[in-house]
Amino acid sequence: MTVNRQWLVKRYPAQDEPLSNGLFDWTESEIPVPASGEFVVQTLYLAPGPAMRGYLEPGHSHFFSPVPVGEVMRGRGIGRIVASEHPDYAIGELFLGSLGWQDYSKQIPRGKEFVFSTKKITKPTDPVSLELGILGQSGVTAYFGLTEAGNIQTGDKVLISAAAGGVGSAAGQIARIKGAYKVVGLAGSDAKCRWLVEELGFDAAVNYKLDDFDAQLAKTFPDGIDLFFDSVGGEVLNTVLPHIAQNARVALCGFIATDYDDTDKGPINYRHLLYKRASMQGFIVFDYWERFGEAETLLREWHAEGKLKLCEDVTEGLENMPQAVQDLFSGNNFGVKICKVAG
Amino acid sequence: MTVNRQWLVKRYPAQDEPLSNGLFDWTESEIPVPASGEFVVQTLYLAPGPAMRGYLEPGHSHFFSPVPVGEVMRGRGIGRIVASEHPDYAIGELFLGSLGWQDYSKQIPRGKEFVFSTKKITKPTDPVSLELGILGQSGVTAYFGLTEAGNIQTGDKVLISAAAGGVGSAAGQIARIKGAYKVVGLAGSDAKCRWLVEELGFDAAVNYKLDDFDAQLAKTFPDGIDLFFDSVGGEVLNTVLPHIAQNARVALCGFIATDYDDTDKGPINYRHLLYKRASMQGFIVFDYWERFGEAETLLREWHAEGKLKLCEDVTEGLENMPQAVQDLFSGNNFGVKICKVAG
Repeated sequence: MTVNRQWLVKRYPAQDEPLSNGLFDWTESEIPVPASGEFVVQTLYLAPGPAMRGYLEPGHSHFFSPVPVGEVMRGRGIGRIVASEHPDYAIGELFLGSLGWQDYSKQIPRGKEFVFSTKKITKPTDPVSLELGILGQSGVTAYFGLTEAGNIQTGDKVLISAAAGGVGSAAGQIARIKGAYKVVGLAGSDAKCRWLVEELGFDAAVNYKLDDFDAQLAKTFPDGIDLFFDSVGGEVLNTVLPHIAQNARVALCGFIATDYDDTDKGPINYRHLLYKRASMQGFIVFDYWERFGEAETLLREWHAEGKLKLCEDVTEGLENMPQAVQDLFSGNNFGVKICKVAG
Repeated sequence: MTVNRQWLVKRYPAQDEPLSNGLFDWTESEIPVPASGEFVVQTLYLAPGPAMRGYLEPGHSHFFSPVPVGEVMRGRGIGRIVASEHPDYAIGELFLGSLGWQDYSKQIPRGKEFVFSTKKITKPTDPVSLELGILGQSGVTAYFGLTEAGNIQTGDKVLISAAAGGVGSAAGQIARIKGAYKVVGLAGSDAKCRWLVEELGFDAAVNYKLDDFDAQLAKTFPDGIDLFFDSVGGEVLNTVLPHIAQNARVALCGFIATDYDDTDKGPINYRHLLYKRASMQGFIVFDYWERFGEAETLLREWHAEGKLKLCEDVTEGLENMPQAVQDLFSGNNFGVKICKVAG
């Protein structure tokens, strides 16, 4: 390639507006050239994530500043170093970090933020995109969510929301590996539910969009849910809470159902935390950045032993990034959403 | 006394109806006589509690069955054994248990429920009513709520809701004893706020009914709240959640603000549990029944050392029990609400 294709932020979306190409400007600029202490990475894969919508809503995110209008849209990904004026980063090496929605990014290794959010990939998986998925951040999120926030115990009856998503599909499998007695997933279609049971080995799956969701939960968990790994919130959380068991744990991973909904009412049934002497624990995977290696080693071992299936849902082409992110909110993905940009 | 005065349940209250004498029938019956294996207790003190309203709302409580219409209203208290046909319970001994809203109750010691909710008082406090308050269940609730559900740490900045109540007034003082860096109470009047600071040694107190509640929290906790001991819920919890610190803990003791409110919306700001990697842990003091002695010993030591002030708000007379319970919902009490029946 001789140009650097880029998605620039054109305007921020309205409250309920889906992400679309119209929010961005597609431009072609020159491939950057590194100055001393810098290097340039060619993007191979980007990892669409729900947080990306937050980059476009000033004042919304508690973790990230918005991306200013006119700048390249922010995004994590994996690429190959194609030019370098930094002694620690050699041409040809693989790099994971904030690459942006573009073919080429200039990286400037300095400051704590760089140290705690980027890394070189020295033993790449095949395909290397797995480093962004179940063998990377999705799997690590599921791992620490279950083990730290959820304090998973042998024999637990576990429920996973957004179970067909990247984190959820990993969480269900890891729960089984950690000795759960029963692993059940929630998903928004019968096709996804079948996929969870038949392909990923969940014991059962429940379609939360059907009218009998509550009754299905009661039937599936007659003795209650010991651990609920929740990335959804909203009505799903409300419906689940009355079904938690004594001393249950809710691992709070996210709230995609109400993330951009100002009418959020909170978990109406939170009193069941008291009734059941239960806990709800929030966590952020980046708090465990220094322990990513520990989790990634385990995830690779489990995968090598055939215990952990990897499932990628690949969108082809940088031009489709807006839709790839929107798919996460529409619930269209089976497994980890990845956008293949080159390679 | 030659008769047994009793409050019988006449009807259940409507949704928003306060407790009043009109819900009960005041009757006088004969003093019961124990059969073999039974004994009779004369009520000295009753402990009005918010749970009592739940006894009058079928289907509401997750812990107790409702008291049937026509039966004596349920209530815990302390009394003296005045007749006994049981070898382990002697006339003259003090007994703590479910006495009911009446002068004399027949006790039948059998079954697990009796074992786990009654006891003889062998070293009575003076007055013995303290056994129902800060040296008893109120203090024990505060103790296990802080140490177990709240996992209190030296240096914590602690906020207590319903701080002028029985449990709250104990919790604030125990938090100080356990090494809290700052102890702040929430109360519903300026008089109570002054009382918390001047009499009980809280570092500060905030009137949650004033318009600047949120601003006062921000000013009082510029670095956030490490531990929130909450018995209130509702708008108080909503307002507090954005002020929690990283890794904060919310000890969920109750939700008196919305306990009998069907329009409960849940803690809108529960997402701060995720933003702050915080937890909310529900607890029930009766789970610690077998450890009550451990807590009661500490509470007495602290009281003897002058570290723990005892504050009772005594209503005189069995005839005033309905109002004494209603006072808890109206926020009229300073400290532990006690009803003195005889003695």
